[in-house]
Amino acid sequence: MKNTTKTFVTLALVAAALTFTACKQAPAESTEATLEVVEANPLPSWHDSASKSQIMAFVEAVTQENGPDYVAPANRIATFDNDGTLWSEQPAYFQLIYSIDLVKKMAPEHPEWAKDPVFKAVLDDDMKAVMASGHAGLGKILMATNAGMTVDAYTEKIMDWLATAKHPTKNKAYNELIFQPMLELIQYLTDNDFKVFIVSGGMADFMRPWASETYGIPTERIVGSTLKVVYTDAGELELLPEFDLIDDKAGKPVGIHKYIGKRPIAAFGNSDGDLQMLQYTAAGSGKRLMAFVHHTDAEREWAYDRDSHIGKFDKGLDEAQEKGWTLIDMKNDWKTVFPE
Amino acid sequence: MKNTTKTFVTLALVAAALTFTACKQAPAESTEATLEVVEANPLPSWHDSASKSQIMAFVEAVTQENGPDYVAPANRIATFDNDGTLWSEQPAYFQLIYSIDLVKKMAPEHPEWAKDPVFKAVLDDDMKAVMASGHAGLGKILMATNAGMTVDAYTEKIMDWLATAKHPTKNKAYNELIFQPMLELIQYLTDNDFKVFIVSGGMADFMRPWASETYGIPTERIVGSTLKVVYTDAGELELLPEFDLIDDKAGKPVGIHKYIGKRPIAAFGNSDGDLQMLQYTAAGSGKRLMAFVHHTDAEREWAYDRDSHIGKFDKGLDEAQEKGWTLIDMKNDWKTVFPE
Repeated sequence: MKNTTKTFVTLALVAAALTFTACKQAPAESTEATLEVVEANPLPSWHDSASKSQIMAFVEAVTQENGPDYVAPANRIATFDNDGTLWSEQPAYFQLIYSIDLVKKMAPEHPEWAKDPVFKAVLDDDMKAVMASGHAGLGKILMATNAGMTVDAYTEKIMDWLATAKHPTKNKAYNELIFQPMLELIQYLTDNDFKVFIVSGGMADFMRPWASETYGIPTERIVGSTLKVVYTDAGELELLPEFDLIDDKAGKPVGIHKYIGKRPIAAFGNSDGDLQMLQYTAAGSGKRLMAFVHHTDAEREWAYDRDSHIGKFDKGLDEAQEKGWTLIDMKNDWKTVFPE
Repeated sequence: MKNTTKTFVTLALVAAALTFTACKQAPAESTEATLEVVEANPLPSWHDSASKSQIMAFVEAVTQENGPDYVAPANRIATFDNDGTLWSEQPAYFQLIYSIDLVKKMAPEHPEWAKDPVFKAVLDDDMKAVMASGHAGLGKILMATNAGMTVDAYTEKIMDWLATAKHPTKNKAYNELIFQPMLELIQYLTDNDFKVFIVSGGMADFMRPWASETYGIPTERIVGSTLKVVYTDAGELELLPEFDLIDDKAGKPVGIHKYIGKRPIAAFGNSDGDLQMLQYTAAGSGKRLMAFVHHTDAEREWAYDRDSHIGKFDKGLDEAQEKGWTLIDMKNDWKTVFPE
């Protein structure tokens, strides 16, 4: 009922905008007219929720010249986590699903894996045992499938997988399981001269080949965990099975400094792995926006909270409530979850 | 004599362009007219040398739609070394001069330095001994002055130094010893939808506070050597006295992959420390531009070549000649060296 009212209000707004622009519509003004519609409702997939108005109030405040909260475009830095913030992460991080798919594909050339409890668990589809293998086990799977090749070969493997693999329950390609409202938010920030960055625990080399086009963010603004890389005499770069940066938790402010060199004024995450990124953003001076995407939609996406196998949302939720950060309630704030 | 002719030709060209635009000049067209002048002569501080025409021929080829060498804007990546390529590096890398100045300033709080041969050499102005201390000694000086503080405190120190320090012989601030022709080149590439990056052996944290404004390149496109950084509970980032990336020689292609995620189509350097960056650029497919700035101007800047205390230019020069890379001869190719 509450949402229906909100939807109605939004529709009324759009209708008003359309009528308004229609009146002054003329061939020469068509782009101008389109722009006005966008400006009238830059976040069409969002209900008129608290989170939407907090986001829009922030953007209006920092972009209002001569206003008390004005921020020059060069300092309008916004950072977004990827897994769980821009795309789904169930039943497991998609990079882990990719790695597991690849282990199965590579198994014939690795008879020794049958004797390794971790790889055996993967080959037996025993996800419980896989997850139970912890950092050591998951690291083993990750390094066996994401290292030991040139970055060009790695890119090819990822694109092949994305082109063919389907999510087990959603029957969509993994890069279709992105959040339409977040795409609109990235566009809205970009239209307001923000520079948008991804700062994810997932690997930069795993994201860059597809995320740049999918989200409209250039590769140099896609920050993630990295493996050590070595330059070969063949003019190629080889991925080594050793982490260079783990861009998670306290690693996120480090990654932000390394790759951006400025403190963000807005940060979006969804788990305790993003907490330090939001704290680092909050610790700057001037107006700030810190927001968590809260997975509350068991029907359209997934519902999980303070303590799921994907990661905890415990400290984050407490601090968000305590400090009045923005909580994006997927079920109640979003009209659409995935792009049509 | 040769140069005078060249200058005359250039002046004639500019004059022609001005006349041309003046003819169709009208208030409404003034910006258009200005643009045409820029297009007529985008590199005014360059003589009509081989290097200038090679650079312009390359840019025209990769920007010509439907041409055989066309490159989409998203892939027009150009990388520039900083020390010796965008600004001077004599009598020593300016970051080393900064560090030496700071050692002297900090000495009173460090009586123990008087007993350390490396710091003693610095305090005695014995540059021969300082350079002779090699990587170990220079590393000691670097870490004592560029680490052990928050990145914000570090930025402040650098900006204070730049605001007051003067070059020993040129009597200019260090960030005034930048190359006007290279500023024009950066602008020319940017006007042609290139994305320009700095990829320097100097530290990113040392360059970003001033280089972004000086060169008009955003901080996330300034890549350099980095120290390990740790996030503190105070929401600050602390610089640790340990290298994270040495962005020199084979470290440059690694830095390019890490920070850019694409192979450049154009690369500019001045020493063997840049050779692998040029080789990595050359190893890609399609049209490429590899260029070295050659310090040949003892009068206006400095003349040094294959083997100077600043670094070698031995392999680079041989490979450039062998492969027909572009050589920018500072003395003969540049009308102006430093901005007026």
